Amino acid sequence: MEILGGPHFAVAGAGESHGPAVTTIIHGSPPGFRIRRCDVQPFLDRRRPGGNKHGTPRNEKDKVVFLAGLYRDDTDALLTGSKLTVDVDDQSFETEGYEDGFTTGEPIAAIVLSTSKKSGDYTQFSGPTGEVRPGHTDLVKFHQSKGFVDVRGGGRSSYRSTITDVIGGSVARIILRECFGTRFVSSICQVGSLKSKQSLADTLTIDNIDEIETSLGEAEIASIDHEFANEAGELIKETRKRGNSLGAAVEVVAVGVPPLLGQPLYQSLKVRLMGALGGLNAVQSCEIGSGVDVIPRTGSENNDPIRSSGYQSNTHGGLLGGITTGSPLVARVGFKPTSTINLPQDSVNKRLDEIEFELAKGRHDPCVGVRAGVTLESRMAIELLNSVLAYQATAHCGDSIKLF
Amino acid sequence: MEILGGPHFAVAGAGESHGPAVTTIIHGSPPGFRIRRCDVQPFLDRRRPGGNKHGTPRNEKDKVVFLAGLYRDDTDALLTGSKLTVDVDDQSFETEGYEDGFTTGEPIAAIVLSTSKKSGDYTQFSGPTGEVRPGHTDLVKFHQSKGFVDVRGGGRSSYRSTITDVIGGSVARIILRECFGTRFVSSICQVGSLKSKQSLADTLTIDNIDEIETSLGEAEIASIDHEFANEAGELIKETRKRGNSLGAAVEVVAVGVPPLLGQPLYQSLKVRLMGALGGLNAVQSCEIGSGVDVIPRTGSENNDPIRSSGYQSNTHGGLLGGITTGSPLVARVGFKPTSTINLPQDSVNKRLDEIEFELAKGRHDPCVGVRAGVTLESRMAIELLNSVLAYQATAHCGDSIKLF
Amino acid sequence: MEILGGPHFAVAGAGESHGPAVTTIIHGSPPGFRIRRCDVQPFLDRRRPGGNKHGTPRNEKDKVVFLAGLYRDDTDALLTGSKLTVDVDDQSFETEGYEDGFTTGEPIAAIVLSTSKKSGDYTQFSGPTGEVRPGHTDLVKFHQSKGFVDVRGGGRSSYRSTITDVIGGSVARIILRECFGTRFVSSICQVGSLKSKQSLADTLTIDNIDEIETSLGEAEIASIDHEFANEAGELIKETRKRGNSLGAAVEVVAVGVPPLLGQPLYQSLKVRLMGALGGLNAVQSCEIGSGVDVIPRTGSENNDPIRSSGYQSNTHGGLLGGITTGSPLVARVGFKPTSTINLPQDSVNKRLDEIEFELAKGRHDPCVGVRAGVTLESRMAIELLNSVLAYQATAHCGDSIKLF
Amino acid sequence: MEILGGPHFAVAGAGESHGPAVTTIIHGSPPGFRIRRCDVQPFLDRRRPGGNKHGTPRNEKDKVVFLAGLYRDDTDALLTGSKLTVDVDDQSFETEGYEDGFTTGEPIAAIVLSTSKKSGDYTQFSGPTGEVRPGHTDLVKFHQSKGFVDVRGGGRSSYRSTITDVIGGSVARIILRECFGTRFVSSICQVGSLKSKQSLADTLTIDNIDEIETSLGEAEIASIDHEFANEAGELIKETRKRGNSLGAAVEVVAVGVPPLLGQPLYQSLKVRLMGALGGLNAVQSCEIGSGVDVIPRTGSENNDPIRSSGYQSNTHGGLLGGITTGSPLVARVGFKPTSTINLPQDSVNKRLDEIEFELAKGRHDPCVGVRAGVTLESRMAIELLNSVLAYQATAHCGDSIKLF
Repeated sequence: MEILGGPHFAVAGAGESHGPAVTTIIHGSPPGFRIRRCDVQPFLDRRRPGGNKHGTPRNEKDKVVFLAGLYRDDTDALLTGSKLTVDVDDQSFETEGYEDGFTTGEPIAAIVLSTSKKSGDYTQFSGPTGEVRPGHTDLVKFHQSKGFVDVRGGGRSSYRSTITDVIGGSVARIILRECFGTRFVSSICQVGSLKSKQSLADTLTIDNIDEIETSLGEAEIASIDHEFANEAGELIKETRKRGNSLGAAVEVVAVGVPPLLGQPLYQSLKVRLMGALGGLNAVQSCEIGSGVDVIPRTGSENNDPIRSSGYQSNTHGGLLGGITTGSPLVARVGFKPTSTINLPQDSVNKRLDEIEFELAKGRHDPCVGVRAGVTLESRMAIELLNSVLAYQATAHCGDSIKLF
Repeated sequence: MEILGGPHFAVAGAGESHGPAVTTIIHGSPPGFRIRRCDVQPFLDRRRPGGNKHGTPRNEKDKVVFLAGLYRDDTDALLTGSKLTVDVDDQSFETEGYEDGFTTGEPIAAIVLSTSKKSGDYTQFSGPTGEVRPGHTDLVKFHQSKGFVDVRGGGRSSYRSTITDVIGGSVARIILRECFGTRFVSSICQVGSLKSKQSLADTLTIDNIDEIETSLGEAEIASIDHEFANEAGELIKETRKRGNSLGAAVEVVAVGVPPLLGQPLYQSLKVRLMGALGGLNAVQSCEIGSGVDVIPRTGSENNDPIRSSGYQSNTHGGLLGGITTGSPLVARVGFKPTSTINLPQDSVNKRLDEIEFELAKGRHDPCVGVRAGVTLESRMAIELLNSVLAYQATAHCGDSIKLF
Repeated sequence: MEILGGPHFAVAGAGESHGPAVTTIIHGSPPGFRIRRCDVQPFLDRRRPGGNKHGTPRNEKDKVVFLAGLYRDDTDALLTGSKLTVDVDDQSFETEGYEDGFTTGEPIAAIVLSTSKKSGDYTQFSGPTGEVRPGHTDLVKFHQSKGFVDVRGGGRSSYRSTITDVIGGSVARIILRECFGTRFVSSICQVGSLKSKQSLADTLTIDNIDEIETSLGEAEIASIDHEFANEAGELIKETRKRGNSLGAAVEVVAVGVPPLLGQPLYQSLKVRLMGALGGLNAVQSCEIGSGVDVIPRTGSENNDPIRSSGYQSNTHGGLLGGITTGSPLVARVGFKPTSTINLPQDSVNKRLDEIEFELAKGRHDPCVGVRAGVTLESRMAIELLNSVLAYQATAHCGDSIKLF
Repeated sequence: MEILGGPHFAVAGAGESHGPAVTTIIHGSPPGFRIRRCDVQPFLDRRRPGGNKHGTPRNEKDKVVFLAGLYRDDTDALLTGSKLTVDVDDQSFETEGYEDGFTTGEPIAAIVLSTSKKSGDYTQFSGPTGEVRPGHTDLVKFHQSKGFVDVRGGGRSSYRSTITDVIGGSVARIILRECFGTRFVSSICQVGSLKSKQSLADTLTIDNIDEIETSLGEAEIASIDHEFANEAGELIKETRKRGNSLGAAVEVVAVGVPPLLGQPLYQSLKVRLMGALGGLNAVQSCEIGSGVDVIPRTGSENNDPIRSSGYQSNTHGGLLGGITTGSPLVARVGFKPTSTINLPQDSVNKRLDEIEFELAKGRHDPCVGVRAGVTLESRMAIELLNSVLAYQATAHCGDSIKLF
């Protein structure tokens, strides 16, 4: 099923790049946590196309409207914020979205409309003679769906689907922060051949996180190494002009992580994070903790010593046997250069006739990694909350449950 | 997770009685099936409150808007039908819903707004001193959610959640009918002590189904026994006047059912149908085939003889070992009398202080079984399509898959 | 997947009537509960063929051997009990099974060998010209598996698969009893047309349960109405002589049930129990609480009044909105007369050639309901523990988790 | 749940390093595929401890016994091979395991006994004052299970659990090879700082696979670069003598892969492979296709050109949008140096008292990557077959299903 996380805390999504809206249903949120639209919107703003000048020129406001799963007796506070109108069969129906309420434990639903759509740009890809963009899903999706694929802007394979990840992840972060003080931060650490000289994992602590979050939030290229960020910005600008694209790598770190999470073995938090982070659009490498750097080390160099105060180093990236140790969760995710480029390439159409492919129209991210941070943080939060619930389920099995 | 069916064809839902909208995501629809809003709406019209004079006085039009999972290159035909507007943060965003498109194989999303809400009616039930309606979930939901329950109209436990069942079920029926000619019909066979003298199972065939469907569609009480239907209508009217409520039983039959469906043993179609039909709001009995009538029979009386043309009788209700035989799927589902009545009853408030409960305000169904038919048909269709996909997965495992 | 319960507490099973063994893996058991082979074996003894003179003549001892998921530092106590030897490729390998240990939180595995197998009895059913027993899965299984079905004794569809239900259910009962004092009892309340004059639901309480369990344990026909039990025993004997079979109904009741369990709506405990109990081999009706008796009642007759001490009656059978109220869980399950009879019947072979079917050989239960009680109790326990874990997961989400 | 793959083809496992046996249940195998014990055993032989002089000195024969899910009317051929004896309660029970049969579509079960157990070696780790091996799960498992962890040899976290992966993977490979000619090969490409100069992905084709498989099968260090293999062997020997351990990297490649597999987006084959391969014990990096090497490339350098004959290069590693293109599936997995070393390290006991840790006894792999190849191949095969079934389910939804 189209589900992130689960079976305890799970996020279902639907929606395509140029469809009417992206729809999200969040299963398994514990009751009693305050969710305000204004607390979720900023995460979507970090993700939205048009929010970052190095991203795609497409400009969507991506305003979230909550439709279910929140409540408070003060229904004015609950409902004053967004209005939803449906005009259909010559009738008009109106309702208010949820603005500020508490999770009831029931499924939470939200939609984000897609309004800045130039569907005409994509006729180049329609039908059996539609052209195939090398590196894209055009060919496999067309044949997997027997020709019924939505070609506009990449359809469901488009990065727009990650609106669901960010809505689900935002609710998860709000709950994790309130319960454990957990925080999630990401920093771009490579663009093309340019590499950051600072690692987020070595820098971030519970004490400096506010400051780092603010500075990353304001940066064009969200990296803790400002010098690298500026160079990377220039490189992206230049590459866009040449009609080409760039790869990137992003560090994702969570601090204030509860220990002992991640069960059972085959669904450990490492299995889940490697899948969720490594499975994101355009990703081709995922590393936990020191990642590939552990391979040349010996055991004595790599093992993290332990003292009564905790693990003295974090090569394990916060996971041992797929279980959290309480040390920061550290992952580094590598993105391929965006497939869509404005340069001629050998390709085929959907019927496999050979063509020389040149992009007619369409707005694209020259470096998808640049906007991916908040999505990676969101996916990490979803999997972490899911494993919190799995842990609490068995840890408190015998706790008394009373009604009368 | 809040999922009907699955893991192949699965329907996720969210939304409460007085929430902004009911949201539905359908997972696993095969690609290439034409879904038109106008083909789904009639099923919702059969379900909607206000569509049947014997139901609740609440009047909702329940117009469905499709937001994802459909496509056709002719985007005018795809999009001309419904318009969705969101007003938020002093900005207005507009998009068109899907009107007529083909399933892409991606998740399908739809919403139905809730607009006829008298939330004020439910203050009687709010907070820790809120009153508890005997027979309702008020008390258990309040404590299960640590007090964060949405009390308006029964919240998520309200029958309104079955909008999702009917949307998912309608998509399933359209696909099953196109693939196998499968049809689903239900008929009310008991209201209070009044019993229908005709059984749908004994009457319905592929040949007379159009005629039966039309007559049931026009009836106030959808029963193939018109005489019984009239008497039942009178009984319901009279019971409503007395502020009381009635139980009911509904027969659900599917014809044109493909054989060999239902695997594996622990997830057989019988396990799934007993759960899906027997688990519906207010249901306390579920029977397959001859149901309780098989108990007093001997094996020789009950076994259905088999000839080359098929099973000669259908005590097994279309399932043997939880696997479809191709005979009609037959189930009979018993509903308790609606819990909400306008008569004094011994009860408590949420803090367990004893009270004499009397309903202040609120609009209710005196006989919930009357509107349940289309929901039962929908749940049967969802589980049947799920088992079709399970069968096809292993039956065609070795079939070649080519691209180049 | 071949899973009972889940996703929190889930029981996977494998094994056919005449296969080498029935294998069981239990997922999600909380850590720290003492499981002794001698505490589980009695439940299997209640189920085993040959343990009840009114059941099948087949005689299996069904000794369980635990292979994983238990531990204690005192490995002598852990391991002294059963020995497992494998002879293969001219080598012999030996190990000891777990006798008495504590759940580690890891998957628990167990096997029960099948040794009393007269596989020759079933040549009558082999291959494309194999004969079809009316009421059985022979025909649908043969074609569903493209002819690769194991025909011996009903293969996987055989009641022997319920060894897994009972092993999983026994572990669940041990945990539920230790945590909440929950107990599960079943009583046969109908055999053919004979009906018990006493209902278990009206009789059983936490105070008299020991006495009732003992008397049921000793009875040939486990019913609280001894007079009915004797008559039923006679009726079964007589029916067996006539080569025929009988239906039955079994009441299943759980007392000491924790309240507030069963979430979310689409996976409520009612959905799960109706599916698990109603989905069992040979079952064609499942009722919760007063079952079909609620239909003719009015709301005022049926609603259970509530006082500070609790629900004053239990027409709801312990579930409102699919959520436990703390009142006893009550279900009544109807079994068809066993399909296999020693009387001539119209049937076909697997190629649909018409035959006059007569059973050549084979040992069968004339009344499968007689042995079903412990399996129904087990399935109820599995689903109840699964819902306990689901409740605890969200109820304790914010509880602190510390390591250093 | 403790499940690899799923929900179509899923493998459940149970068993600890020093438990009686490792138990495996395979769900969803299509019917009609011939499985012989002698076809599965060689894969286990590649995995087993004691089968590779560079691995652990522990020597287990790991003979598999099949207990369910296979059948053929020729029961002699089905059963002549292995014998299973249980001695319990002063009685002896005997049965034969399945030797050579056809999948029935029912769950397949198998066990492998653990017989070479020196449980005494692990008293150093027992109880609250038991010592913690840096880099191991000792501490987190002890507290996650409230002290009820099985400390012997790493309990469930031990590499021994991968017996299940290899049994499930072997059945999957047999089916995939028969259906599509799919083959899976792995080659060690890095040990410590030593790197192979040949890449399996650049070398392996359908034509040379037999030759390569044979040479890898005979090698002490299974790498296509023999020179590198010899140097690596020496390095491991030397490292073992120094009481230390080494990291490693393994390439896994599948050829003859059907295209169009991997749906839906959130459960794409990339999500699944990154999770399954990247989640394996001791892994800290997982790369698909060119992996980290894509990051510094531009789009024009990285996009694989397409001609009518197929993709002209394979930087995408056989997956675009998480969907197979038919090109070889390529992954590279990095293992940390084994945590257990014979050198003093700063650590704590389970109560967090600080200790200087030195290994008393115990047999360990100095370089876990050396034995991991067959497990990685197995996990890739399980996920690939699962996605084949998902594809066939929707691709053939409308295909007719007939019985009469």
